[in-house]
Amino acid sequence: MTTVAQNTPGKQSNAGAVTPTTDAELESLLAAAQSAAAPLAALRPAERAKLLDAVADALDAAAGQLVPVAQRETRLAEVRLRGELKRTTFQLRLFGELLRDGGYLDARIDHADAEWPMGAPRPDIRRVLAPSGPVVVFAASNFPFAFSVAGGDTASALAAGSPVLLKAHSGHPGLSLLTAKVVASALAAAGAPEGTFALITGTAAGGAALRDPRIKAGAFTGSIPGGRALFDIASSRPEPIPFFGELGSNNPVFVTEAAAAKRGPEIAEAFVGSFTLGAGQFCTKPGTLFVPADSGLMDALRDAVLPPAMPLLNDRIQSGYVEGLQGLQSNPRLNVLAQGTDPLADPPSPTLLLTTATDMLAEPHALQAECFGPTAVVVAYDDESQLPLIAETFEGQLTATIHGTDSCRVDGLVEILARKAGRVLWNQWSTGVSVTYAQQHGGPYPATTAAGSTSVGTAAIERFLRPVAYQGFPQHLLPEALREENPLGVPRLVDGRREN
Amino acid sequence: MTTVAQNTPGKQSNAGAVTPTTDAELESLLAAAQSAAAPLAALRPAERAKLLDAVADALDAAAGQLVPVAQRETRLAEVRLRGELKRTTFQLRLFGELLRDGGYLDARIDHADAEWPMGAPRPDIRRVLAPSGPVVVFAASNFPFAFSVAGGDTASALAAGSPVLLKAHSGHPGLSLLTAKVVASALAAAGAPEGTFALITGTAAGGAALRDPRIKAGAFTGSIPGGRALFDIASSRPEPIPFFGELGSNNPVFVTEAAAAKRGPEIAEAFVGSFTLGAGQFCTKPGTLFVPADSGLMDALRDAVLPPAMPLLNDRIQSGYVEGLQGLQSNPRLNVLAQGTDPLADPPSPTLLLTTATDMLAEPHALQAECFGPTAVVVAYDDESQLPLIAETFEGQLTATIHGTDSCRVDGLVEILARKAGRVLWNQWSTGVSVTYAQQHGGPYPATTAAGSTSVGTAAIERFLRPVAYQGFPQHLLPEALREENPLGVPRLVDGRREN
Repeated sequence: MTTVAQNTPGKQSNAGAVTPTTDAELESLLAAAQSAAAPLAALRPAERAKLLDAVADALDAAAGQLVPVAQRETRLAEVRLRGELKRTTFQLRLFGELLRDGGYLDARIDHADAEWPMGAPRPDIRRVLAPSGPVVVFAASNFPFAFSVAGGDTASALAAGSPVLLKAHSGHPGLSLLTAKVVASALAAAGAPEGTFALITGTAAGGAALRDPRIKAGAFTGSIPGGRALFDIASSRPEPIPFFGELGSNNPVFVTEAAAAKRGPEIAEAFVGSFTLGAGQFCTKPGTLFVPADSGLMDALRDAVLPPAMPLLNDRIQSGYVEGLQGLQSNPRLNVLAQGTDPLADPPSPTLLLTTATDMLAEPHALQAECFGPTAVVVAYDDESQLPLIAETFEGQLTATIHGTDSCRVDGLVEILARKAGRVLWNQWSTGVSVTYAQQHGGPYPATTAAGSTSVGTAAIERFLRPVAYQGFPQHLLPEALREENPLGVPRLVDGRREN
Repeated sequence: MTTVAQNTPGKQSNAGAVTPTTDAELESLLAAAQSAAAPLAALRPAERAKLLDAVADALDAAAGQLVPVAQRETRLAEVRLRGELKRTTFQLRLFGELLRDGGYLDARIDHADAEWPMGAPRPDIRRVLAPSGPVVVFAASNFPFAFSVAGGDTASALAAGSPVLLKAHSGHPGLSLLTAKVVASALAAAGAPEGTFALITGTAAGGAALRDPRIKAGAFTGSIPGGRALFDIASSRPEPIPFFGELGSNNPVFVTEAAAAKRGPEIAEAFVGSFTLGAGQFCTKPGTLFVPADSGLMDALRDAVLPPAMPLLNDRIQSGYVEGLQGLQSNPRLNVLAQGTDPLADPPSPTLLLTTATDMLAEPHALQAECFGPTAVVVAYDDESQLPLIAETFEGQLTATIHGTDSCRVDGLVEILARKAGRVLWNQWSTGVSVTYAQQHGGPYPATTAAGSTSVGTAAIERFLRPVAYQGFPQHLLPEALREENPLGVPRLVDGRREN
């Protein structure tokens, strides 16, 4: 195993400007990624865990250099960025833990069975999940650490054993370069195969990488139009490949009459905190709040004290937000419920709009559009029986939330929301996506392009794996996880029974 | 739960002709499937297992009616059809066993943890796999039971809890209608929700169903062009959905010099048996055999006694086969190695063609095309070192096989084939796909349109499931599998630890 430094083209020629990856550079990086696939796959899971730990350690050690660059390029506060970096390195180490456990391999052994009741003898078949091959990851703008260069997509792909070409987001070019250098150096020093990770820059290079036959999967976090365009590229290749895009979500919140009566002011305050958190630039921002028309909660929202204006991530997001808010405000079905002094300025004050359940039923698509920034819509309803009907009008969501009390009859609503969303919450807020074993950050389209997957939590590794079965193989030619004596000590399903 | 009989339009107006499903019929069936989704999903897994058992019992009981119709429509022998039906009902019951075990739910519980080292407290999050929603299944022609109306796609979708619209294959219309009646009656009698299963007929109805927003996944077994066309429909919908197509495969077999020397005649005989099994109409038929040019195996193949002509499934497959074989025979790189008396007649005698490793390297795509029927290509190689090079030229495969001896140095070849194929075999034959826990019947495109999935074996259920997480929920609103006391007794991952 050589320890050659990873390639990171895309030199930063001056403040904020980055040279796009050239065709020649991309070709060399794709070739390197392809060359890295076999040796990276051949590493034992626990050896790959060491690579992830090394990257996490290096990022933690570089926090003093990384965070100031992130502050400058994203306008996010230092405390938020330090927390996000901590989350990012925790995530890398959690995937390392997953690798050391080995359960993610889903190893299965069926011994030969002459009496197998299918009607024909069963041969010896053994199945394990293997890396999918090189992956291109498109970084997001709103989490410059956790969903960017060394974020969840990169961590889960490397954990799976798939080399990563990381398409940098143009919103934080200097941070992307710096992070990539830290990642590449740490991987090289820890003995990763050359080509395990590289940064690419520029829209053209990203598209070309996704089209390249050496790339076997794509991952993305961003807008619906951008994600759909990339999904279409991945699906229309001569060899179509899976594309795991996390796109947009409205994240509706349904407050029952009982909850509004019991905790109106508390819900109002928490809602304002949630939809304005990070200036509303979270994909899990609650975009719609359903509230009984005649309730103390409605009064509390009307009188809500909105937080002061906060700068958005960059000029493009600022102009997109202003355009989106103007579109909503021009809709006669929407009125201003509460608003700061400068809703369309830079930075923008938060805005709360108001509509009715009847209006939303009349024009659901327009009133449920995601508005990326500090705006949300309050929907006044007359009767709880309207809620399931309205819930059915929503497209696929990352999250959906109910605020209720233990005596509320909401079974039907829970069933609908569980069908519409990847994560359903009860009396909590969707912003803040914990990295855990059971986390599900996904959902039916357009929340994602792959409803069966998650981009946060340990199950995210499954996206970059594919099953391979070995039939009738001698022990010495089997992957270690499938050998009889179980040298890696991984949990397995043996003849249909779990063995830990 | 009502027990209304399932709808099965597509009346058989006379021998072999079936009226296509009309738009109005399809609309009613789609509405019924959508209505069935929630009650079917709400059944406990063990209750759905009873439905599958009921279908299996009814099919076994109807064997005397089903098999003669199958014989008439597919020209397959009675013994083969009875065996295939047994495999089909075994498969339904095996999915029932999977449901009773509950491990397929991948239930995960993360209790709230204020000290979660991510940097923020972990909320209570619980994740389980839920049905994807209604599925359209396109039946295959070559396995009128096991990959048709009540085959693996139907069994795994119903097991997952997803209603099925089954697009009948035109190759066995009467059998499809009859099987669907047995399935629908058994489901109704066992208390399945109305709309759980229905047959549709005609290409237009199949396409319309796949385009309908109520359908959430597609499954298919058939040709590369047909499967790709349907995949493109599924991917280009306003809401794209996963499409699990099992398309084509060449299933190459690599015989090492040592194996050819040691077991030449035995390998030749078994190979002939395998590529002519079922008149070569298996998607796992070994289409290419790599043989040392100067070996007893080559002599044995030249002198091979090919089995007599067998009728192909139907006229369309017969004419497609003749066209494909003529195309291969007109290629100057291919010569006849052994051939029966009437290779292009109906029924056709088997054909073995011959080429060299050098020729295949020069024109891999044309020489590796799947020829559905009793034809295979023998490739004479001069040196084993050519094998990895040629293996790299193959597209994605369902299977790839090595015949070797324990002393053969084939690690590199195994690695390449495991990257190219879903199942790799050692000293066995790819025809015959056992239904087991570890089976993997899939592979990179064009073997399938979803390399991460299998259409045979218990893991096939994963195709029709999607994860849903519940955050902060009270016990009584959680799915049973996620409640603290584990009333279903399913294996779970609790705070990262497996609990059986």
